[in-house]
Amino acid sequence: MKESLGPKVVAMPSPVWVVASYNADGQPDMMTVAWGGICCPAPPCVAISVQQSRLTYSNILQQQAFTINTPSVQHIAATDYVGIVSGKNTDKFSVTGLTPVASEIVNAPYIQEFSLALECSLIHTVDLGLHTQFIGEILDVKADAEILGQNGISAARLVKPLISSAADRAYYACGEYLGQTYNIGLNFLDEN
Amino acid sequence: MKESLGPKVVAMPSPVWVVASYNADGQPDMMTVAWGGICCPAPPCVAISVQQSRLTYSNILQQQAFTINTPSVQHIAATDYVGIVSGKNTDKFSVTGLTPVASEIVNAPYIQEFSLALECSLIHTVDLGLHTQFIGEILDVKADAEILGQNGISAARLVKPLISSAADRAYYACGEYLGQTYNIGLNFLDEN
Repeated sequence: MKESLGPKVVAMPSPVWVVASYNADGQPDMMTVAWGGICCPAPPCVAISVQQSRLTYSNILQQQAFTINTPSVQHIAATDYVGIVSGKNTDKFSVTGLTPVASEIVNAPYIQEFSLALECSLIHTVDLGLHTQFIGEILDVKADAEILGQNGISAARLVKPLISSAADRAYYACGEYLGQTYNIGLNFLDEN
Repeated sequence: MKESLGPKVVAMPSPVWVVASYNADGQPDMMTVAWGGICCPAPPCVAISVQQSRLTYSNILQQQAFTINTPSVQHIAATDYVGIVSGKNTDKFSVTGLTPVASEIVNAPYIQEFSLALECSLIHTVDLGLHTQFIGEILDVKADAEILGQNGISAARLVKPLISSAADRAYYACGEYLGQTYNIGLNFLDEN
């Protein structure tokens, strides 16, 4: 017998991504989001949700672009910090020592020190209530050589992404490798 | 110097959720999705993306409802299996031994054996290309008592959710607890 918890966003796991953008003066800013995910393979699209009061919200609408940068476990303090303070009164790149690199593909910076970056062009804006969902088409992916495994694939065991859980407001590491998708289930079939 | 990988959905991490729905005859079906995420806290909303050829696609449009069920690590084989086969010609509940429970809140079943379920009413449909994004408002959350920690909160370290990575098509476990959000960054501030 399950208990009813009421209407809450306790879905898990959530990603931990740092969204980078330019403001109207071309100054780079970044903020951490946990509410988002891949939403289409063709065209390749990813969604993030941002509160309307955030600088990132107006930046994305103005520039029609953003990048999604993937912090690794060692970046947890800076990542949490850029989710706490506002870029309206803080130069988060300066404080954290992270480096914005101008994308040549979209009008947004990506973060040099993070190993995986997605360069996104805004294609849909969905107003949902307190947050607005921005859907970006991924125009290119930039990756450090050290996260590229066989066949140039960026493996999670090399990226070491952070994971968040909205229910307990906690960060977790990515744990042990369990197997390949569309494969473990074949074993299940054999057993039945 | 980062390498360019081209436009690919290599964002990570992704969730592993089993979406359950009824078909036109009221038969329960389920499929695994990795492409989705929380998208708004108020109203509480979650997004999933489904290919138009899937039975789940027509079920959700017909019933205007679905549930998101969170498999734990021990459910990995059944979870992968329900992502491989189609409900059009297979009774996935029968094959896996999982049990559909009729939601009293939305016209969809949830899965008894999974510890955390979100009951969702469809509020937005966003056609993106190969996949369509369904945004559901979470009307209630059902949880097993054993995943509820302090203050009735469902902690990820108790749920043990699966994590997927689109780039390397792999499943991972949720790893070690690293700390609380909006907290680790305060330590970072102190250091600077």
